[in-house]
Amino acid sequence: MTLPAAFVDALVAALGAAHVVDDPAALEAASVDGLDRDGHPPDLVVRPGSTAEVACVMAACDRWRVPVVPRGRGTGYSGGAVPVRGGVVLSLERLDRILEIDEANLLAVVEPNVITGDLQAAVERVGLFYPPDPASLDRCAIGGNVAECAGGPRAFKYGTTGRYVLGLEAVLPTGEVVSAGGRTVKNVVGYDLTQLLVGSEGTLAVVTKVVLRLLPRPPVTATLRVAFASVDAAVAAVLEIVRARVIPSVVEFVDRLSLDAVERHLGIGALVPADAGAMLLIEADGLAAEVEEQVARIAEACGRTGALEVLRAASDAEREQLWRARRELSPALRALAPLKINHDVVVPKARIPDLVTLVAELQRESGLPIPCFGHAGDGNIHVNVMVDPADAEALARARTAERRLLEGVVALGGAITGEHGIGLTKVPFIGLGLSADELALMRRIKRAFDPHGILNPGKIFPDED
Amino acid sequence: MTLPAAFVDALVAALGAAHVVDDPAALEAASVDGLDRDGHPPDLVVRPGSTAEVACVMAACDRWRVPVVPRGRGTGYSGGAVPVRGGVVLSLERLDRILEIDEANLLAVVEPNVITGDLQAAVERVGLFYPPDPASLDRCAIGGNVAECAGGPRAFKYGTTGRYVLGLEAVLPTGEVVSAGGRTVKNVVGYDLTQLLVGSEGTLAVVTKVVLRLLPRPPVTATLRVAFASVDAAVAAVLEIVRARVIPSVVEFVDRLSLDAVERHLGIGALVPADAGAMLLIEADGLAAEVEEQVARIAEACGRTGALEVLRAASDAEREQLWRARRELSPALRALAPLKINHDVVVPKARIPDLVTLVAELQRESGLPIPCFGHAGDGNIHVNVMVDPADAEALARARTAERRLLEGVVALGGAITGEHGIGLTKVPFIGLGLSADELALMRRIKRAFDPHGILNPGKIFPDED
Repeated sequence: MTLPAAFVDALVAALGAAHVVDDPAALEAASVDGLDRDGHPPDLVVRPGSTAEVACVMAACDRWRVPVVPRGRGTGYSGGAVPVRGGVVLSLERLDRILEIDEANLLAVVEPNVITGDLQAAVERVGLFYPPDPASLDRCAIGGNVAECAGGPRAFKYGTTGRYVLGLEAVLPTGEVVSAGGRTVKNVVGYDLTQLLVGSEGTLAVVTKVVLRLLPRPPVTATLRVAFASVDAAVAAVLEIVRARVIPSVVEFVDRLSLDAVERHLGIGALVPADAGAMLLIEADGLAAEVEEQVARIAEACGRTGALEVLRAASDAEREQLWRARRELSPALRALAPLKINHDVVVPKARIPDLVTLVAELQRESGLPIPCFGHAGDGNIHVNVMVDPADAEALARARTAERRLLEGVVALGGAITGEHGIGLTKVPFIGLGLSADELALMRRIKRAFDPHGILNPGKIFPDED
Repeated sequence: MTLPAAFVDALVAALGAAHVVDDPAALEAASVDGLDRDGHPPDLVVRPGSTAEVACVMAACDRWRVPVVPRGRGTGYSGGAVPVRGGVVLSLERLDRILEIDEANLLAVVEPNVITGDLQAAVERVGLFYPPDPASLDRCAIGGNVAECAGGPRAFKYGTTGRYVLGLEAVLPTGEVVSAGGRTVKNVVGYDLTQLLVGSEGTLAVVTKVVLRLLPRPPVTATLRVAFASVDAAVAAVLEIVRARVIPSVVEFVDRLSLDAVERHLGIGALVPADAGAMLLIEADGLAAEVEEQVARIAEACGRTGALEVLRAASDAEREQLWRARRELSPALRALAPLKINHDVVVPKARIPDLVTLVAELQRESGLPIPCFGHAGDGNIHVNVMVDPADAEALARARTAERRLLEGVVALGGAITGEHGIGLTKVPFIGLGLSADELALMRRIKRAFDPHGILNPGKIFPDED
């Protein structure tokens, strides 16, 4: 689109010419996300340096009706930060400071572009703990985590990002700056705008500051790697652990296809015995005595469901190796085929066996590899349909498998996305998860925030016609 | 108001005449809440027996533009269930079943009028745990807890009601039935309507079913009663406990005035030594070894800040006595004066000493007793200005103290209500907690749900003019 000159002038006046960027490399870089998805390059990238400057950008976009896409570190998996209608990408890269770590009140105040792993390290240095741990924690930002309500392995015990967001400062599409929540865990003044903005995928407002709840750092963590002959046995162990009334901090599941891929990708030896069909990566944390009790119950539960071996990491280095393998799963799979159709479905955990059966069926029917891994404790499994998009016939089979997967998940009482959001990629499927009445209500909420539809258009909602 | 005959006929046709009630006793009973506040009696009370019947009631109210107030067990403290414009009270009394306790998936599905304590007992029988524990748990309902995002003592460790709501079924003011969330902890399909409805005080939709997350029941709980010479010393202990990196399940604070009142009310001997100026009721829960470690750290922290005595409940009977005293505090205070101006302010916990100083000042200035107790771990203190409303001059002093209290709390970085909601009683003060832009945004959200303003009018929002 051609941007009105007066609009560009207003941006330059507010931000300075250095922060209103139109060189092609910057535009191109701002049009992809964690899956290198193609978007429509924006016409401009702007880099406000303060909340007031964000407000100026929003007011200008609203006045001239220019689409604007907020963008943090671009690591998302559903296209939330990818522009599809040109316009402006509002990069939050300059808002990247940890403003405060308040030990007495157990909270941190951060700007949106702080890297999640950096915040974790900073609070751990003073004996505190920020639990949410998306696999991309070394490169993703808190702002994006808030926008998508990011999860991660520790969500089983500790919950997802939303549970840690006490308050927000945000700029509405019409330019007003609002605060939501605050510095207290309890706050019931009016509607809970905080949790409404969490997971709203950058479609309701631009978050400029986040107040995060912290916990005391658990002094001890035990890490177990448990091998099973089959996926079914691994899943049975998860249910048995819950029956033993233990909530491990982590229960990650990896199937054989994913194990092979990550072993090749990292050039490491076998993570588990060659006859293992699946692995669980389990952690328990807390005070020492508590951890030992949990580990004992977990090992017993795994034994009862036929674990081939239960190994406990003896050192931080061993623990780190296991985690590195887990975190590199997603990139590792790309070697299997050029296109990874990536879903993060979620089912009630007792239905994971049904989900596993479904994926096996889809693999047979489609003839395509569909490696699975993920957060078994939450019933949240990353299912990846691997395909070469140059093979049109294979791609059609992949798309059929994708739709059948999502329909199956809903039939099992689950949801089509547990962590990544609808963004762009799941828009065609939103009708599987929401009724027409629910979608209409959400559209009305969207209009209550964004009357002219300028903020992150094309996301979550199908086009109306 | 006079209800249109066609409207009443529609209700009778949908619900049966037995469930469309207009006898004066029923109307009067439906016009009060937990503080026996006077409302405007409704013209009718309706008692739908199913979600479909709730939808019929809402559609009729919307069509004929009749105000409708959803009501559970009427135990609220801010007037949320009290009608102020007549019309219809929609009683949820017939929707009172526990539909399901799902041990494998750690969840329960309940209708709104289930009593919170009954649900707790039912899940504890199978080794599970529903943490939220408002003081009225023996008489309040889950639906009201959801509407107000009820807290309680255990919120310090476990969080408030919202953290346990995985999903809801609700009826919109225009009659559509919507589902929000579901049966999984993770779900990022569209906006988080679940958490938006939690705490919305019956102004956005009528909740007809709730999916609640459960935890394993902690096997051991230790209960400590700690006496301090002064309020300041008790508050210092709370901060010292946090510094010791312990999160007790409960840290309840009771001042001397409240102790005296409850001792008289229950006719029991001194709860703490006569020279004690304040008491903390502290609990730690978990596996046995973990509890012992926490108790040791808590006792040390209390010792460092000058505890007069630390007593551990030796039996369930002793524990029950302490809790009975705590739960009866609110009724006990009524003996001090006919009117209890009841606030549940919240400040960041490190600011509790400033709050305590402020309350002492207000007591001196007003010459009125202002007993305080509450959830010190959360910085959430129940401050009660006790006054005889027949004394107009005293009442004016009370109202001045009330406003200064709320202004002071906001100045301390807190919020004017942490548990009870804005309802009716805090409408005059909402401007202290929200900016004009924030309030305008919330009104737009309200209209997105309730275009004709029929649902629970007069609550949360000041009249527009």
